[in-house]
Amino acid sequence: MQITFLGTSSGVPTRARNVSSIALNLPQRAEVWLFDCGEATQHQLLRCDVKISQIRRIFVTHLHGDHIFGLMGLLATYGMAGSPDRIDIYGPKGLDEYLRACQKYSYTHFNYPIKVHTIEPGVVHQEADFTVTCIPLKHKVPAYGYRVSETDKSGRFNLEKAKELGIPSGPIYGKLKNGEVVTLADGRVINGRDLCGETEIGRKFVYCTDTVFCENSIELAADADVLIHESTFAHEDAEMAFDRLHSTSTMAAQVALGAGAKELILTHFSPRYAPGNPIVLDDLLQAARAIFPQTKMAYDLMTHEIARRIN
Amino acid sequence: MQITFLGTSSGVPTRARNVSSIALNLPQRAEVWLFDCGEATQHQLLRCDVKISQIRRIFVTHLHGDHIFGLMGLLATYGMAGSPDRIDIYGPKGLDEYLRACQKYSYTHFNYPIKVHTIEPGVVHQEADFTVTCIPLKHKVPAYGYRVSETDKSGRFNLEKAKELGIPSGPIYGKLKNGEVVTLADGRVINGRDLCGETEIGRKFVYCTDTVFCENSIELAADADVLIHESTFAHEDAEMAFDRLHSTSTMAAQVALGAGAKELILTHFSPRYAPGNPIVLDDLLQAARAIFPQTKMAYDLMTHEIARRIN
Ligand SMILES: [Zn+2]
Ligand SMILES: [Zn+2]
Repeated sequence: MQITFLGTSSGVPTRARNVSSIALNLPQRAEVWLFDCGEATQHQLLRCDVKISQIRRIFVTHLHGDHIFGLMGLLATYGMAGSPDRIDIYGPKGLDEYLRACQKYSYTHFNYPIKVHTIEPGVVHQEADFTVTCIPLKHKVPAYGYRVSETDKSGRFNLEKAKELGIPSGPIYGKLKNGEVVTLADGRVINGRDLCGETEIGRKFVYCTDTVFCENSIELAADADVLIHESTFAHEDAEMAFDRLHSTSTMAAQVALGAGAKELILTHFSPRYAPGNPIVLDDLLQAARAIFPQTKMAYDLMTHEIARRIN
Repeated sequence: MQITFLGTSSGVPTRARNVSSIALNLPQRAEVWLFDCGEATQHQLLRCDVKISQIRRIFVTHLHGDHIFGLMGLLATYGMAGSPDRIDIYGPKGLDEYLRACQKYSYTHFNYPIKVHTIEPGVVHQEADFTVTCIPLKHKVPAYGYRVSETDKSGRFNLEKAKELGIPSGPIYGKLKNGEVVTLADGRVINGRDLCGETEIGRKFVYCTDTVFCENSIELAADADVLIHESTFAHEDAEMAFDRLHSTSTMAAQVALGAGAKELILTHFSPRYAPGNPIVLDDLLQAARAIFPQTKMAYDLMTHEIARRIN
């Protein structure tokens, strides 16, 4: 699982940072899931290894322009890139109507199926390998954080050892593979776990934006391998953060700490901290690290590999 | 008057060319008028000398996404850049509704006045120095070409000469300045034109996109100093041009020739002619020049000064 930051600025683009979007690459299936799609997200895709044709799902946190104004252009271009498949889009109430209005007035007819799912707190998408859940955050408009949890995988079943033990083949093997305890016809009791390798714990990716500090973020980010949290403001500007319902870098760090996350990556920075200003982004980073040392700061086109942990 | 090409690709952005937008700089008033506003137009403004805060009017040719998907982001950013003034937007029916829907669903509230004018063929904007007219073009959806005509200015009145001739000061001077013929109290007949310098012919900027070859383009571009005309396809792909109601570079050249334009600048190129393909953009240029030698090919962030002609 690899993350590519396509935009790390809040509100407006700068020369160095575009507005919000993150690509999550699922290499198992050569599939990309996008989180938010600010204006010029498709332009950012031209500058990195993520292919627009790989996008399969788009998760939208909220309907502010810097998170959605790139959707229509990206969806139109996707339709022209090779043989378009299908795109599922998830987001708050109003997203479907927004896209329908844009299509109507711009005379846009997509040549592939698009399904817009209006999300509610809880599971928004589930398949064998992944579950995506969302939780409401605390922003000026309805906003949701997303969590992608990879399904835990039981370790490899040791077929050779099972044969050595003289376990007769048949449905028993399936039970043992699942880690169940089985009593054989000859009376021996076999614990399937002894025949399986270590369980592979699934990876957990959590994305919280836009929001001021809130308990829901901590709940969503529990035990996350990587928490990506907005960090619009510096701690010194906390008053602005509370007023506009955005986070300081220290709020993001407190969420990571409270959630027991393995790693925190800050993003969604106000352009006011550009180099040369009294407070700069490195100050935001240092303040966060004082609370949660495993903190990184995202930059545009930065990639981050979420490593698998073996328990 | 200076033109800056902010996007010269048709349909989709490429690494080298963004989708449509042109800035017309009116130095007399440090004011910029934009023509079309494809996605990431505001991003292009970060890379050139045109300041977003200078934009005063936006003229939209038609509502296809590659011409309007940058509007909302640009208008939102404009509101955050310094002290926003007011923006007038001109375009076909549906533009107002499009912008209203986008504002509604994205919870966008502009902190400055925006007035959307639904255009009809004829004069769409007039002031002392400039007149903007539009004419319907021939495209899959309602599309209009625009012409900006600078008002002719009568030459400087030679006050010294008038005094030498002993013409008494008073309202007579105003008449002479206007080039009128005046009979003085002493019987002398004075032609105002003899006291005025050469008339400064106003400059004419014409922008035709998207369209297949049509007579209206020729009418709009009559005697233009610069005609900017779409050139999506090569002459070899004329069938596609007729089918999709776009122009070949040779159609653009025929319009320039028929209109007696001084100069033609091609833009809105299909990405299919990128370097390495069987037909490349230089082929489009050469084919146009065979018909209309004063042809240039636009590239992103290219600037072009429209010089004043003195008759
Ligand atoms: Zn927001
Ligand atoms: Zn078009």
